[in-house]
Amino acid sequence: MKDFLSKKAKSITPYVAGQQPSGENIIKLNTNESPYAPSKRVYDAVKSITGKNLRKYPHPNGGDFRESAAKYVNMPIENVFCGNGSDEVLAFAFQAFFDKEKKLSMPDITYSFYPVWADLYDIPIKRIPLNDDLTINIEDYFFCSGGVIIANPNAPTGIALKKEKVELIVKNNPENVVIIDEAYIEFSGELVCGLVKKFDNLLVVRTLSKSQCLAGIRAGFAIGSKSLIDGLFRIKDSFNSYPVNSLTSAAAAAALDDKAYYDKISKKVIETREWTQKKLEELGFYVPKSSANFVFVKPKGISAKEIFEKLRAKGIFVRWFDKDKVRDFLRISIGTDEEMKKLISCLEIIINKEK
Amino acid sequence: MKDFLSKKAKSITPYVAGQQPSGENIIKLNTNESPYAPSKRVYDAVKSITGKNLRKYPHPNGGDFRESAAKYVNMPIENVFCGNGSDEVLAFAFQAFFDKEKKLSMPDITYSFYPVWADLYDIPIKRIPLNDDLTINIEDYFFCSGGVIIANPNAPTGIALKKEKVELIVKNNPENVVIIDEAYIEFSGELVCGLVKKFDNLLVVRTLSKSQCLAGIRAGFAIGSKSLIDGLFRIKDSFNSYPVNSLTSAAAAAALDDKAYYDKISKKVIETREWTQKKLEELGFYVPKSSANFVFVKPKGISAKEIFEKLRAKGIFVRWFDKDKVRDFLRISIGTDEEMKKLISCLEIIINKEK
Repeated sequence: MKDFLSKKAKSITPYVAGQQPSGENIIKLNTNESPYAPSKRVYDAVKSITGKNLRKYPHPNGGDFRESAAKYVNMPIENVFCGNGSDEVLAFAFQAFFDKEKKLSMPDITYSFYPVWADLYDIPIKRIPLNDDLTINIEDYFFCSGGVIIANPNAPTGIALKKEKVELIVKNNPENVVIIDEAYIEFSGELVCGLVKKFDNLLVVRTLSKSQCLAGIRAGFAIGSKSLIDGLFRIKDSFNSYPVNSLTSAAAAAALDDKAYYDKISKKVIETREWTQKKLEELGFYVPKSSANFVFVKPKGISAKEIFEKLRAKGIFVRWFDKDKVRDFLRISIGTDEEMKKLISCLEIIINKEK
Repeated sequence: MKDFLSKKAKSITPYVAGQQPSGENIIKLNTNESPYAPSKRVYDAVKSITGKNLRKYPHPNGGDFRESAAKYVNMPIENVFCGNGSDEVLAFAFQAFFDKEKKLSMPDITYSFYPVWADLYDIPIKRIPLNDDLTINIEDYFFCSGGVIIANPNAPTGIALKKEKVELIVKNNPENVVIIDEAYIEFSGELVCGLVKKFDNLLVVRTLSKSQCLAGIRAGFAIGSKSLIDGLFRIKDSFNSYPVNSLTSAAAAAALDDKAYYDKISKKVIETREWTQKKLEELGFYVPKSSANFVFVKPKGISAKEIFEKLRAKGIFVRWFDKDKVRDFLRISIGTDEEMKKLISCLEIIINKEK
């Protein structure tokens, strides 16, 4: 068969998302989804969409979703950009702000989609090693030769940088765009989007997949100076005029408008995380302090891969990365209390068998 | 203010979509949306989505939408790719199949997003002039030096190529991928997706925005050989793991499953188009035979721009392109019978005043 692919399509190594197993008795702790249902208002909003709305193109700039996102972060609407998941927003940002001539700095251990986008858009990268305790040394990111991207809290470590440390990185890169990917920020509490008012070069990216329990609708947004937001629009309008559809816009807006519900959900996830952390430590795991809806943990006396496989055999899916420096770790999403109790019971059996 | 945009973001000229005016008494004939509501089944499908579905990521490959699309075109599922509107599918195809070293051939008058994608991905283009009667001379597309993209029916002309002519273009480009963008095909009747079984190098792209009355959900798909579909997946998985969300997938699948409803809708649009064509000809317009849900028409004795502006002042939006070769034309989407009667009445007044 003839090979019709472009050089680019042949050379890239696509991102591999966590498995999406289906089945009744599966405990899915591998993709950092919320174990809780979204706000009831989301369903009301979706149900209220009429035929008139769906036959017409959606608002090109995100419509209600954009308005609600602006209110949610207390910023003018011109500082907000909406996309088809934070993945799309980030892919646009890579094209809008980074060039072939300058290396993009990122931690060596971080969201593994970053190097994939860099490769897709021919952006060279500089991978900066984390400290031995998996934390970020902020001085490593001062006066970089090109842009900077950091997930905060970082993934898959779950470790967060304090707001003042993020501010120092942004301040010490006056010539570069700094992207702070806050996918998991609502499980830690230190939002940095207010810094956007102070720094023209800061883009903060958020998602509704985790804290708004809406991975299924693919909604993400960015907050930044008007000039950065305009840059995102230039790329968006050269790619897809309407990436956020009418159903997504209605659902996302309704979720962002129900802060009270989601504050409760995030609080519950944090409680369950603290309980899980304690139990895992009792089982001998090394558990760096997580600020996310997952924990990143290193077992003792048994390999992470073995636990990963044994859990999967019992219908519990966690994430194991076959990569240097993190091969000894497992990333475990925080589920319901019941799910985490089952996980801990299974781990007790697996670990005690090894002893 | 400092300029943080990449060279690419600065150099591109984004696509400009038709205006989306809002208001009660507006007649919107400028973006080729359907004047009719989508199938009732679409709403039933959307309403039936439960919280469980939305908290989890959607199926990475389109799920039910992909299955229904495969059934709809009577092809195996491995030959189908789903995306966030045919715009996203086309953007992926440009990256997957076209290179910087080879010119992509397209008509000089065609969907104006094609040159925008080419520019975004550094693909050089060869614009091949249409014949004076706005038709495509197929021999111009034989043995091209790179890929080929043709909208069939072409936009904004509405003129279709016969299936055997499309086949000749595909056959006479054994080294190149030929993309046939069938956004408007259901208003003409000559589907070419069956040719995919015969030719490895043919990618057919479809949308639910026009014939399925679902511009608001952004759903499009492609049909091609397994190797072309795999190429699209490589790009998709390097850009956004889940571009089709759970709501979109459910809505798109339900629409494609209700062929009986949509066959009636397309038939009605065609009837209204024929009536409109006749009336416009009576008013002195030159109207090339349309195979789409719009007509592309040239007025006599008055400029297209003047009619465009006068119609807008009366709340009727049509599309006028301020571009060489088409500046004398208007593109008018086919609305309901009532809308088209109002259009014709307004045109009668505008034209008679000029006399």
